[in-house]
Amino acid sequence: MANRIFNFNPGPATLPLPVLEKAKEEFVNYSSLGMSVTEISHRSKQFDAILEDTKKLFCEILGVPQNYKIIFLGGGASLQFSMVAMNFLAQGKSADYVVTGEWAKKALKEAQILGQPKVAATTEPDFKRIPKQNEIKLDPNACYVHITSNETISGTQWAQYPDVGTVPLICDMSSDILCRKFDVSRFALIYAGAQKNLGPAGVTVVIIRDDLVEKCPEKMPTMLNYKTHVAKNSLYNTPPVFAIYMIKLVLDWVKGQGGLAKVEEINNEKARLVYGILDKYPDYFKSAAEKESRSIMNVTLRMKNEETEKMFIDEAAKAGFHGLKGHRSVGGIRVSMYNAMPLEGIKKLVEFMEDFKKRNP
Amino acid sequence: MANRIFNFNPGPATLPLPVLEKAKEEFVNYSSLGMSVTEISHRSKQFDAILEDTKKLFCEILGVPQNYKIIFLGGGASLQFSMVAMNFLAQGKSADYVVTGEWAKKALKEAQILGQPKVAATTEPDFKRIPKQNEIKLDPNACYVHITSNETISGTQWAQYPDVGTVPLICDMSSDILCRKFDVSRFALIYAGAQKNLGPAGVTVVIIRDDLVEKCPEKMPTMLNYKTHVAKNSLYNTPPVFAIYMIKLVLDWVKGQGGLAKVEEINNEKARLVYGILDKYPDYFKSAAEKESRSIMNVTLRMKNEETEKMFIDEAAKAGFHGLKGHRSVGGIRVSMYNAMPLEGIKKLVEFMEDFKKRNP
Repeated sequence: MANRIFNFNPGPATLPLPVLEKAKEEFVNYSSLGMSVTEISHRSKQFDAILEDTKKLFCEILGVPQNYKIIFLGGGASLQFSMVAMNFLAQGKSADYVVTGEWAKKALKEAQILGQPKVAATTEPDFKRIPKQNEIKLDPNACYVHITSNETISGTQWAQYPDVGTVPLICDMSSDILCRKFDVSRFALIYAGAQKNLGPAGVTVVIIRDDLVEKCPEKMPTMLNYKTHVAKNSLYNTPPVFAIYMIKLVLDWVKGQGGLAKVEEINNEKARLVYGILDKYPDYFKSAAEKESRSIMNVTLRMKNEETEKMFIDEAAKAGFHGLKGHRSVGGIRVSMYNAMPLEGIKKLVEFMEDFKKRNP
Repeated sequence: MANRIFNFNPGPATLPLPVLEKAKEEFVNYSSLGMSVTEISHRSKQFDAILEDTKKLFCEILGVPQNYKIIFLGGGASLQFSMVAMNFLAQGKSADYVVTGEWAKKALKEAQILGQPKVAATTEPDFKRIPKQNEIKLDPNACYVHITSNETISGTQWAQYPDVGTVPLICDMSSDILCRKFDVSRFALIYAGAQKNLGPAGVTVVIIRDDLVEKCPEKMPTMLNYKTHVAKNSLYNTPPVFAIYMIKLVLDWVKGQGGLAKVEEINNEKARLVYGILDKYPDYFKSAAEKESRSIMNVTLRMKNEETEKMFIDEAAKAGFHGLKGHRSVGGIRVSMYNAMPLEGIKKLVEFMEDFKKRNP
């Protein structure tokens, strides 16, 4: 596409161009059915194929063991904050939350509305880093431990997931699922809003271990019970058909790229380039996150003053680099570079950063 | 489009072809931004314009009074069954449910999980009709009255909404919103899953009166509180951007058709044609719903035996009429003819029905 820009939005985020082109091509007439994919029944054999293919691709790409189920829900990761606590934070018991940023705090807040969670560790108030294993005070009787894999606002990410013993580990992977290889079997439940590495906004993927499904309460609102959606294979009600279809296309693309090993390699290279220029000019592009906790999805940085930051963002936009403004709660610059951001975009951005510094020393 | 079929799916359902073509045309490059609409930020001025336009079109087309708010939620109407009760069914108090079909029953069931609702009227077990005003036993102290405007499975629809006095009237309008003119001011809350008359699956529209927003509890899961989404103008979390955009296109199309008055006229004509042939051959095409309760959205009928029904459905599919199978729980034939089903499709279907009868007397 001639005038396609480099989209650094933090989410909804850039999607792979071949995915968009494929979706466009078959948008009005899906699979020669004489209907759009937005018009097919969720109980048709065509949607059944989309759903099964999507699950199969997840299993293959992520290496999901057989004792896990994959479901697709509406409502976004923010609804998962409540669903996790409604399903697993039993009355009179506790759950451990590791508070690494604004997203983890929101998850904790929803658990506090429903029960008595504990803060196992926090890096408040500035969230510049992920806590070390020995800083995390785990309760062996906790119903679960909740962590947030990547914090988009502060730009931190777990390099190594914590060891939580036999307590079920629940993880919000909304902003970094599929960015690298990891061992699914260390988690009891993983959830991820789609709108970063998976597809458009409007669907959340949940990967849940069978023994956790068994722990869902009998009496609770049907739509908020994980057991409902596992039992009905995401078809208890009408799922977000188009968003799931888009995820399938994105997973096809990931597989075509060479799977997670290759995607991780490219993501590491992208991170090396951007953090490289931060480390080259540490007083000019000031890394917001501590080195060991840096996210390979969202690079956060400050410049000498807000005026310079504004100039940087505006000039970048004119040069075709969109969405570099930091989150409104912290300001600064944020380079969100999810899987679909091509290496070329990062190379050009880094050149732009070099040039900007030269012009504005 | 050359080989476009007539899609009688009950939902997800057919969408207007001009809407699909417009969405396709600008899918990869929305508004010359160099991005897809699936990639734009929900906090961008472009999405803000989509959101405001969609709300404005709703107000204009439906005549929504100023003391109402319009919000867009994920999770489908099935989640509204629970949200309504979580927000408004106060402890120790009751709510009245009018049980007209499987959807109303599901709404009641979710209220029963959370509190002590009453059945104000029911037309169980066969749901062939909508109860008369004098059959509905209303409790003047009820927190609200819940009705289901149209029942897709049994094919019934309220011709006149009931008079419930000063008790707030809450209505599931998922399967017939925008099918005809009605007085919004009679309702305290209207909700509608999009996938029939509004757009693709994945978003639910809620129209809520200001005084009801004030009644939402202080302490409950944030995402399940209507007040959250009203206060944040549907932007508390990332909304289903693409589905909302599609609703906007559908509303543009409705307006272009001549608004609700014209749409209602066409829907009545479509209903007149299909029910006309049922009334012409009442022993051959047996109307499942009673005459006064018939839906203009979903016509349900039985034929002499299941074999004939199967033959009818199969032959219809070959002739380009898709999705005529009745709901799996009741069998038979169902002609779902939402707004986007062109009059031409109904004319041709009726010809096919005449012809089928001739060939299979």
